Amino acid sequence: MRASALAARPVGTQLPFQRASLARMCTMELPPLPTVDENGEPLSKNALKKLKKMQEKEARKAADKAAKAEAAAAAGEGGTGGAEDGAEVEEPPAYYSFGDDGILMSEASELESPRSYVPVRSLGAEGSPAIGEEVWVRGRLTRLRAKGNQCFLVIRAGGFFTVQACFFKDKATPRQSKEMLKWLGERTEESIIDVRGELVAAEVTSCSQGNVELQIREVRLVSAALPNLPFELDDASRSEAEIAASEADTTTDRQYARIGQELRLNHRWIDLRVPANLAIMRCQSMVCTLFREALLQEGFTEIHTPKLIAGESEGGAGVFRTDYFGQSACLAQSPQLYKQMAIASDLERVFEVAPVFRAENSNTRRHLCEFVGLDLEMAFDRHYNEVIGVMHTMFVHVFTGLEERCKDELAAVRAQYPDGREPPRFSEQPTIVHWEDAMAMLREAGEEDAGLDDLGTEQERALGRIVAEKLGTDLFFLDRFPSAVRPFYTMPCPDDARHSNSYDVFLRGEEICSGAQRVHDAAMLEKAIEAKGMPLEPLQPYIDSMRYGMPPHGGGGIGLERLVFLYLNLDNVRKASMFPRDPRRCSP
Amino acid sequence: MRASALAARPVGTQLPFQRASLARMCTMELPPLPTVDENGEPLSKNALKKLKKMQEKEARKAADKAAKAEAAAAAGEGGTGGAEDGAEVEEPPAYYSFGDDGILMSEASELESPRSYVPVRSLGAEGSPAIGEEVWVRGRLTRLRAKGNQCFLVIRAGGFFTVQACFFKDKATPRQSKEMLKWLGERTEESIIDVRGELVAAEVTSCSQGNVELQIREVRLVSAALPNLPFELDDASRSEAEIAASEADTTTDRQYARIGQELRLNHRWIDLRVPANLAIMRCQSMVCTLFREALLQEGFTEIHTPKLIAGESEGGAGVFRTDYFGQSACLAQSPQLYKQMAIASDLERVFEVAPVFRAENSNTRRHLCEFVGLDLEMAFDRHYNEVIGVMHTMFVHVFTGLEERCKDELAAVRAQYPDGREPPRFSEQPTIVHWEDAMAMLREAGEEDAGLDDLGTEQERALGRIVAEKLGTDLFFLDRFPSAVRPFYTMPCPDDARHSNSYDVFLRGEEICSGAQRVHDAAMLEKAIEAKGMPLEPLQPYIDSMRYGMPPHGGGGIGLERLVFLYLNLDNVRKASMFPRDPRRCSP
Repeated sequence: MRASALAARPVGTQLPFQRASLARMCTMELPPLPTVDENGEPLSKNALKKLKKMQEKEARKAADKAAKAEAAAAAGEGGTGGAEDGAEVEEPPAYYSFGDDGILMSEASELESPRSYVPVRSLGAEGSPAIGEEVWVRGRLTRLRAKGNQCFLVIRAGGFFTVQACFFKDKATPRQSKEMLKWLGERTEESIIDVRGELVAAEVTSCSQGNVELQIREVRLVSAALPNLPFELDDASRSEAEIAASEADTTTDRQYARIGQELRLNHRWIDLRVPANLAIMRCQSMVCTLFREALLQEGFTEIHTPKLIAGESEGGAGVFRTDYFGQSACLAQSPQLYKQMAIASDLERVFEVAPVFRAENSNTRRHLCEFVGLDLEMAFDRHYNEVIGVMHTMFVHVFTGLEERCKDELAAVRAQYPDGREPPRFSEQPTIVHWEDAMAMLREAGEEDAGLDDLGTEQERALGRIVAEKLGTDLFFLDRFPSAVRPFYTMPCPDDARHSNSYDVFLRGEEICSGAQRVHDAAMLEKAIEAKGMPLEPLQPYIDSMRYGMPPHGGGGIGLERLVFLYLNLDNVRKASMFPRDPRRCSP
Repeated sequence: MRASALAARPVGTQLPFQRASLARMCTMELPPLPTVDENGEPLSKNALKKLKKMQEKEARKAADKAAKAEAAAAAGEGGTGGAEDGAEVEEPPAYYSFGDDGILMSEASELESPRSYVPVRSLGAEGSPAIGEEVWVRGRLTRLRAKGNQCFLVIRAGGFFTVQACFFKDKATPRQSKEMLKWLGERTEESIIDVRGELVAAEVTSCSQGNVELQIREVRLVSAALPNLPFELDDASRSEAEIAASEADTTTDRQYARIGQELRLNHRWIDLRVPANLAIMRCQSMVCTLFREALLQEGFTEIHTPKLIAGESEGGAGVFRTDYFGQSACLAQSPQLYKQMAIASDLERVFEVAPVFRAENSNTRRHLCEFVGLDLEMAFDRHYNEVIGVMHTMFVHVFTGLEERCKDELAAVRAQYPDGREPPRFSEQPTIVHWEDAMAMLREAGEEDAGLDDLGTEQERALGRIVAEKLGTDLFFLDRFPSAVRPFYTMPCPDDARHSNSYDVFLRGEEICSGAQRVHDAAMLEKAIEAKGMPLEPLQPYIDSMRYGMPPHGGGGIGLERLVFLYLNLDNVRKASMFPRDPRRCSP
C-alpha cells in the first residue's frame, strides 16, 4: 500500500513565503523524542539535539530501505504508481520531472525539507512571489489541453482561484520533455497535483489569476481522479439563463447540459466544488458567525440543549422517535422548551445554533427534515418589542456583514443565480406589520384575507410584495399572529386573546423565523396546554421550571438554510444545505 | 388570567441610564400603525403622528376599562393578586407602594412610559447612578429578613451580583409602611421582583455590591416562586470542603446539607442558578467562541453535517436508530465521514460544533450519551503535524482566552470547586509524546505497559501524572496510537503499520480529543474497511468521495463537556452539560 511514497520523494524548494501553519511546524521539535534518559531523568538540550539527529538519520535510512523494497515489490505487481516510479528510477529526472507521489503518509522525511506551497490566489497578486521565481503550487487539475508539443493546464485551488500552467517540448532535452508531455496528457481532470514552475507574466483571461502563468518544471500527482466524473463541473456551474439561451439557439445543435438536482445531490462532494455552491457554504458559515457576533455583543450566552428528549418534544406529529435504553425518546423539533428553561436558570439571554428535526412529509422547495436552527431567547423588561429590537439589530448585522465580508463568495453565487443580484432591502428600525393591518393590505390588493387562520404560501408572497412596494423593505415582522395557529406557550395579546404576542419574520416574502413572547406563568401555561387538548404530564418539568420565579421572556427561531436561500434568492432550500435531508433523501 | 396586570401599572421613572436594548426600543415607532390610507396610499408623516396619538389614547382607555373589570372579577374570585391589588385600589399608594404586577403581557402602555432598570452589577460601580438617585432594579429575592419594624432583602441579578435593599417602618406613614412590611415579609425566596429605591452608601460585606444599598420606595412582584424550593441554593453552593468541615465539627449539631447529583439534575433549572454552575455554562459558551475564533483565524469554514444518516454511521454498536419515512436511519456518532466529504468538496479546512450521539451503556463520571463535538478537519500539505500545530494553537487560544475573558466566572467556579484553582499548564509548542515512549515511561514508573491495546483509565491518569512531572505540561498529544484500536479511516504510520498517524489529546491526564491523519485513497480505504471485517456497501458514498481527487487531510474531535470539566477540574462531566444525557437520564 505504501508503495513508492518515499522513493519518489521530491526535492523540496525552500521559499521565503510559507503557509502560516507550515511555517509554525518548521520550528517545532518534530518528531518528538524521548525526553528522559534511561533513569527517567529529563535529558539535557544537547543530549536531545544529538538524539534527534541520530533518530532522523536512522529513520531516513530505514525509510529508504523499506520504500525501495516496497517499490520493487509494487513494480513486480504491475501497479501503476509503482510502474511510473519504476520508470523514474530507471532514469533519474533532471530539469523536468514528473511522477506519482503515491499516498502521502506523513513520512518523517517531510519534516526535514518540506515542500512549501504558494496559494494560487496569491499568484500575481500584491506581495506575491516575484516574476521569475520558482514556486510550488497544489491544486486540482481543472482543465487539460495537451496537443503535440505543448500542454496547458488550469490549476484550481481555494475554490474559485485558477492559474494557467504550461509545458512545451524542449529541444535541449527532447526525450525527457516528450515523456513528460505524454504523462501530463494522461492526467485526469479534478486530480490533485503539485506543480513546480517558474512564475512568468502573462495574460490569461480565462483564469482568476489573469496576469501570470507557470512554466512547468515538475508535476507530482498527489491524488488521481477517476477519468469520468458523474457530471462536468462546467455544466454544473452555468446559470439557467445560459442553458436556456443555448437551448433556444437554433443556429447550432450544441446545447448545454442541465444537471438535475438529484444527480447533483447524489454526488454532492463534487457538486459542492461548483464555485457558486462552495460560496453558498461559505456564506452559510459567515451567517452563523455574524448571528453569534451580534448576540454575544448583546450579552447573550451560547447554550447547547439536548436533542434526545424523553417522551414527545413539543408534542404532536412530525417527531422522529428512538429507543433510549429501553424507554422511548424523540428528537427535538426545536430547542424551545430548553431555551426557556435556560431563562428559568438565570442565563438571561441565550442562543443556540444546532440541528432541529422534523419528521414532516413535506416535499417542497423550502422544507427540510433536518435543518440548522438559529435560536435565541431572552428575558425582557417590559415589552416583547425589546426582543424584536434585538432580533432586528442581529438581522442588520448579518445582512451588512455578509455584503462586506463575503464579496468574492457573493459574486460567485450571483454569477450563477442572478435572481439574488440585489441584496434584500431592510429598514433601519424594525418594520412591524400587525396581522390586522396585513389582512387589510391583502384585501385591498384583491388577495384573500386569512382571517384567523395561518397564511398560505401564496398569501405570504403577496404580502411580501405589498410590503416591499409600500414600505420599501424585504424584511419585516408580521406581528400579532392569531393565537389559534400558534403553539401553546405563546402569550396572548393583552387587548385581544384571539391574537398573540407573536410574529413571523419575512424575507423576500417567505417566512424565515417564528418568534413570540412566551407564557411565563405556570398556571396560565397549564390552562393553555389543556386548551390545546394536550396532556400536561409530558411537559411537567417544563411547567415546573416556571414555578420558582420566571421573568417575562421571548425569542425566536430562524432556519439557517432558509435565511441563506432567501437572502441569495436561490430556487431551492436544498442548495443552502450541505447534505440536505428530505422525506426522500437521507444519504449521502 | 390577566388579572390586575394593567390596574397595577407602576408609574415609570425615567432615568438617564437605560439598558441599551430598551433605549433603542424607545426610539421605535411602536406599536406600528397602518401606514396606508383607505385608498392604499402611504400616509403622510403628520397623518401618521395623529393616528398614533389617537391609537394610543384609545388603547389606554380600553386597557384601563378592561383591566378594571378584570381586576374586579379577580378580586371576586378571591385571587391573591387581585386581593392585594384590591387593597391598593382601596387606598391608592403614595410614597410607599407594593403589589403584584400580575402577568406582564406586554401591554401597549409599557411603550409609553417604560420602567427603566439599572443592572445590579452596576450599582456602586464606576459610572453607575449617583448616591441619592432613585433607581429601579429587577432581580430575584435571594434573602429575606423581616423582623418587627424592618425588612432586609438581598436582590440577585446577572447570576452573581447581589445588592441589599432595606425598608423600615416610617412614623410619618405608619399604616402604609406597616402594610408594606407585612407584604414584604410574605414574599418567597427566588421570586422575581422590581424594586424602586434610593441608592445610599453602605457597607454590606455579604453582597457583591458592597458599597451601596437601596432604601426601598416600591416593590412590585413580577413572578412569584413557590414557598418551598426542592433544595436551598445556599446548600447547593457550598464546596465539598465546607460541608465536610461542618460534618467533622463535633462542637455543633448543625451540619450543612449535601445536595445529591440526582436531586440537582431533576431540578436543573434551579441547580443552574448556583453561581458556580451558571459560571460553568458561561465558560462553556466562551470555549465555543474561542474555538471558533482560533479556527476562523486559520481560514476554516464552519459546516453543518447531517445528524440523521441512512444505515449505520461509522458502523457497529452504540448507535441510536430511528425510522426515517419507512427506511432505517441512525443518529451520527460523529461528523467524521461528512467532514471528510467536506474536504473532498474543496472546503479545505472545516469545523463543526454540534451534538453527537452515543448509545453506549457507560455509567461513568466522564461519559455522556449526547454531547457537543468540537470537530475540525483540514487538508494539509506534507505532514499531519500541521494539523497538530493548528490544534495546539487553538487549545492555547481557548485556555488563555478563558483566563482573560472569564475572570468572574472562573472565580465563581473555583470558589466552589477549588481543585481547579490552578489552570492547566501547557507548552508553547505542542508536546507530542510517541506511543512507544509513553509505554516506556509507564514501565519505568512501574505501571502496566498497554502494548498495542488501548489505554485503561488508570494508565491514562498515570501517564498524565508522569508527563506533567517530567515535561511540566497538563496538555499533550499522545501520538502513534496502535492501529488495532483506531477506526478504519486512520492512516497507518509509514514506518510501522502496527502504529498509526493518530493521537489523543490529554488534559489533566484524561482524553479530551481523538485525531488522526485519515486514509485519503479509496483503494487503501476499502482494504482497511475489509480488514476490520466491515461491509463496504453502507460506506460507499464516503468511499466514492475519494475517487475524484482527495488531498491528504486530518483532524480531530473534542468533547466540549470533557474539555470544560477537565479544564475546571470538576468531579463529573455532567456538571459541564446543561441537561446531561446518560443511560439512566433523558429528562428534563
